[in-house]
Amino acid sequence: MSSDDIPDIVVSRLPLYLRALSRLALEGAKITSSHELGKRLGISSAQIRKDLSHFGEFGKQGTGYQIGYLTDQLRRILKVEREWKVALVGAGDLGRALAHYNGFRDRGFRISLIFDSDPAKVGTILNGFQIYDDAQMGALIPQHGISLAMIAVPAEAAQKVADALVAAGVRGLLNYAPLNLAVPEDVRVQYIDPVVHLQRMTYYVEP
Amino acid sequence: MSSDDIPDIVVSRLPLYLRALSRLALEGAKITSSHELGKRLGISSAQIRKDLSHFGEFGKQGTGYQIGYLTDQLRRILKVEREWKVALVGAGDLGRALAHYNGFRDRGFRISLIFDSDPAKVGTILNGFQIYDDAQMGALIPQHGISLAMIAVPAEAAQKVADALVAAGVRGLLNYAPLNLAVPEDVRVQYIDPVVHLQRMTYYVEP
Repeated sequence: MSSDDIPDIVVSRLPLYLRALSRLALEGAKITSSHELGKRLGISSAQIRKDLSHFGEFGKQGTGYQIGYLTDQLRRILKVEREWKVALVGAGDLGRALAHYNGFRDRGFRISLIFDSDPAKVGTILNGFQIYDDAQMGALIPQHGISLAMIAVPAEAAQKVADALVAAGVRGLLNYAPLNLAVPEDVRVQYIDPVVHLQRMTYYVEP
Repeated sequence: MSSDDIPDIVVSRLPLYLRALSRLALEGAKITSSHELGKRLGISSAQIRKDLSHFGEFGKQGTGYQIGYLTDQLRRILKVEREWKVALVGAGDLGRALAHYNGFRDRGFRISLIFDSDPAKVGTILNGFQIYDDAQMGALIPQHGISLAMIAVPAEAAQKVADALVAAGVRGLLNYAPLNLAVPEDVRVQYIDPVVHLQRMTYYVEP
């Protein structure tokens, strides 16, 4: 089955299943069920079974899922059984926090190329990696075979950075700048903006 | 119309509309259209008109939206025409980046109470605020009238922190720890996990 046949909303839930499975494994569990996963994730068990059925037969009625096996299969489906090198643009507070975050490695990612436009930062070392000037993206990104990048620059600079990353061959952008990016159709963008999440809650919460 | 009548998926898009409007205003625009907003956001103009129609009549066919007016109305609907004080738990790399982030203030939020469990950090100052011990959440959060919190602690500590925040009266949690939290039904949780976003892209991107 090709990627195009599976709704993106289904794909978007697979990382959550994978995360919950890793958590269960950490807790020492070997077997789980769509019911247990659903309870943890606030997703119906029927939805989970339906989502997984797009990709194959991962458990038997009544016996549940082998956590190790389902984890391996989801990793393979999401292509994170390998390690992806990721470029980081922006070595400010957020960029530094991302560079130091130790939750990427065991989930398929490693920040291995860092850029900043500030001459005072260029040439310094962040988490073992030299910070390069933004102008070097076009040369270094293809050289390192990198197709994913995180944008952690101010909003004003983000579109220009995105353009340079895309021109350098990046096909997936995780954008922390608080604005929507214009990118070609074959480039994926995911957004992280804490204010969007907070505003989504204030609608419901009494001040 | 009460909150309950409007689908959460509609509410979830309002912060994006507000963000795009602010961007347009920064660029000097006074008037926009559902078409222009849609193009910026990758959302159909019909969807935008339908979403907004849940809350009233904000523009006239053919003349578009007054950006200032629509911004004010969306701020009012999302209750961010006021400033919400937010508690931050965890003063590690991420917590420090959040404490220094200057994108909260003009969008309705201010981190004004910071906690950490590390005795070496407690009592020190972060971005002008003293860091308090986690044990003081129960006393300080109600005292400061805080109903929103961000969790920036390791996964192992997150559920315990969430429990303490909820017990202290917090009703909206922005959780950066990479796991799902169990909370009472009247508590909202939003999640930020960069790996989930990255894994959602690797499915589509050729390595």
